[in-house]
Amino acid sequence: MLIVKKFGGSSVADAERVMNVARIVTDSYREGHEVVVVVSAQGDTTDDLIAKAREIDPNANKREMDMLLASGEQISISLLAMACEKLGCPAISLLGWQAGFRTDSKYSVARIKKVKAERIRAELDKKKIVIVAGFQGLNKYDDVTTLGRGGSDTSAVAIAASMHADLCQIYTDVEGVYTADPRKVPNARKLSEITHDEMLELATLGAQVLNNRSVEMAKKYGIELEVLSSLKKAPGTKVKEVTNVEKMLITGVAKDTSIARIEIVGLPDSPGVAFKVFALVAQAHVNVDIILQSVGRDGTKDISFTVPENDGAKTVEAIREYCERKGATSINCDTDLAKVSVVGAGMETHEGVASKMFEALADANINIQTISTSEIKISVLIDRKDADRAVLSVHDKFFDNED
Amino acid sequence: MLIVKKFGGSSVADAERVMNVARIVTDSYREGHEVVVVVSAQGDTTDDLIAKAREIDPNANKREMDMLLASGEQISISLLAMACEKLGCPAISLLGWQAGFRTDSKYSVARIKKVKAERIRAELDKKKIVIVAGFQGLNKYDDVTTLGRGGSDTSAVAIAASMHADLCQIYTDVEGVYTADPRKVPNARKLSEITHDEMLELATLGAQVLNNRSVEMAKKYGIELEVLSSLKKAPGTKVKEVTNVEKMLITGVAKDTSIARIEIVGLPDSPGVAFKVFALVAQAHVNVDIILQSVGRDGTKDISFTVPENDGAKTVEAIREYCERKGATSINCDTDLAKVSVVGAGMETHEGVASKMFEALADANINIQTISTSEIKISVLIDRKDADRAVLSVHDKFFDNED
Repeated sequence: MLIVKKFGGSSVADAERVMNVARIVTDSYREGHEVVVVVSAQGDTTDDLIAKAREIDPNANKREMDMLLASGEQISISLLAMACEKLGCPAISLLGWQAGFRTDSKYSVARIKKVKAERIRAELDKKKIVIVAGFQGLNKYDDVTTLGRGGSDTSAVAIAASMHADLCQIYTDVEGVYTADPRKVPNARKLSEITHDEMLELATLGAQVLNNRSVEMAKKYGIELEVLSSLKKAPGTKVKEVTNVEKMLITGVAKDTSIARIEIVGLPDSPGVAFKVFALVAQAHVNVDIILQSVGRDGTKDISFTVPENDGAKTVEAIREYCERKGATSINCDTDLAKVSVVGAGMETHEGVASKMFEALADANINIQTISTSEIKISVLIDRKDADRAVLSVHDKFFDNED
Repeated sequence: MLIVKKFGGSSVADAERVMNVARIVTDSYREGHEVVVVVSAQGDTTDDLIAKAREIDPNANKREMDMLLASGEQISISLLAMACEKLGCPAISLLGWQAGFRTDSKYSVARIKKVKAERIRAELDKKKIVIVAGFQGLNKYDDVTTLGRGGSDTSAVAIAASMHADLCQIYTDVEGVYTADPRKVPNARKLSEITHDEMLELATLGAQVLNNRSVEMAKKYGIELEVLSSLKKAPGTKVKEVTNVEKMLITGVAKDTSIARIEIVGLPDSPGVAFKVFALVAQAHVNVDIILQSVGRDGTKDISFTVPENDGAKTVEAIREYCERKGATSINCDTDLAKVSVVGAGMETHEGVASKMFEALADANINIQTISTSEIKISVLIDRKDADRAVLSVHDKFFDNED
């Protein structure tokens, strides 16, 4: 089998952990598999490098930031290759560009255009374990780019897709995907299987087990993922197109406390106004989530929508001039909110999921501000201070009954 | 003018020093020069990376060591580029391979084969300060190589040679080349000019201001070097083919305390034996310095020679089997010695330099064990404990009279 294994920064944080990863990798190699390993930078390396740059210039040139940050994976891949060789298995490390990662030129958030995997293939044919720097690539100017946080997951899936790997294993510090955050919800259960769509909703909703671009890519190319622990040898959670387990009503409860709600009051109720607002937001490269539009007084309308918390100020900046010119009476950015969601392919064919969720929130005396639904997801906006209680109550409502 | 400037690791050790270097570089750029900067890894970065590797495997794969160590310069070049931009000048960092460094495949001690400087030229034409990672290149397999310690000097000279630069400035933590180590010899004087040959002898003899490969290359391509301080604005020492100052009798006194003497006693006095011994040493990639051969007892001969101290054990290993088979009665490795040398193009045309040196040593009651001479250098081996006293006495003898 051709297996791609990805290890995050905490899995290779020090020499001992690097050796631990090398053991997992060489065990798999000795079982006769072809093994490609994707590694992130060690532990806090990326944060340390960012701090170094900030000392010089808090708004450093993005090309140079990518050059700087890409050094982190260079360290971890070479150390892991040494560790595999120490354990008696031939290994070779490859930088993003050597492994054939070609990206667009959006420094710090580059997208993979293709993986020219000839070099990886050649090294596998020489019976080597191939260790690839995640998170990085090369643009058309032959300059180093990075994929942004969590990009190593995407690197792993991109290799799996381009080489038609049989399996892509994402090793993390948790044992798999849970019905809720196990640190917060004592009854949270590990799922043995989940569909890409469900995983995608969970990832998008703040359950940061997998980077969502990586899940999108895995779905598009039909790659089977497995999320498992690098510290404990146990089966993880398989993310696959069709799951064999009987469909659960919902697979998980997630919260996202890193959101901001933008509220614009008093826009004219005429065609094209909302379109223009969201066009401006898109130009600022901000992703909009839950949108609510309501009729205001005197032929005006109010628009509110959520964005990532970090983009809140930027979003207001992007729309202020237009909205004020159009007569808006206020533009607010509210960061006291959280989004709590239930996800599950099962809800497509079951009724009553929404009412059960609202009942759980009512039981906990939590006020719902906004509701948003899709085929396999129901999200609500609530006060941020109520988020953990909301997750607990909703989780209990759906999962305790099933025991 | 096209100027290449090289800064060592201590010159860019922290954010403050990086800004200091950026000021030197941008000042030169603002004067209208085209500036290419070569930088080493920050401060102790290389040592820290070596320590990381040793934790995993003290004898780590050399290809992977080069991959690991090359990350050090990646950090310093990007930080320096940010600092130059912060000061308002456009700058771009380039890795060894991006700057066109092609090397042979001897990992950890690679030699530069050529510098394809098209990218550097293109960035200069865009009016950018170009900041290049020293110490590293790419071999024919597209794998990262490093040039070995001090290799950044060589990187700088190689760029200067391939681009026909007008000047190559090597910034260090000293103010230039001195007649002796100023920390040890209070009367040591800074030289305003020195020839490549003199510099080469000084470098080879342990006065580690410049890497000797870089001086060899500068001599070969007729590159004018300048050694100067990155911390104090003052003229340094120019290293050029013909110096304008009246030739001094000697230009400097140097010591090398990192040597080992190998002694082989009782080899047969037959043709080809010495040749074979040195062939074995060469195969072990060890450089031999002072050789002494003497007649032993009963038709045997003794051979002694010096090697770098770190190579002592390896050298004995390389020759032991052959020497014992040939009947040698002992092979010793002696590390209690130091080499003290006087260097100066002036001695080619002056007599009495050797006797003056020996007189100085006799005055200090220091015993000479071995003597070696070349056109512009006289070296003696003495007890290592006497090395500092020897340098002081010899320096006084040659330089105090001239005042």
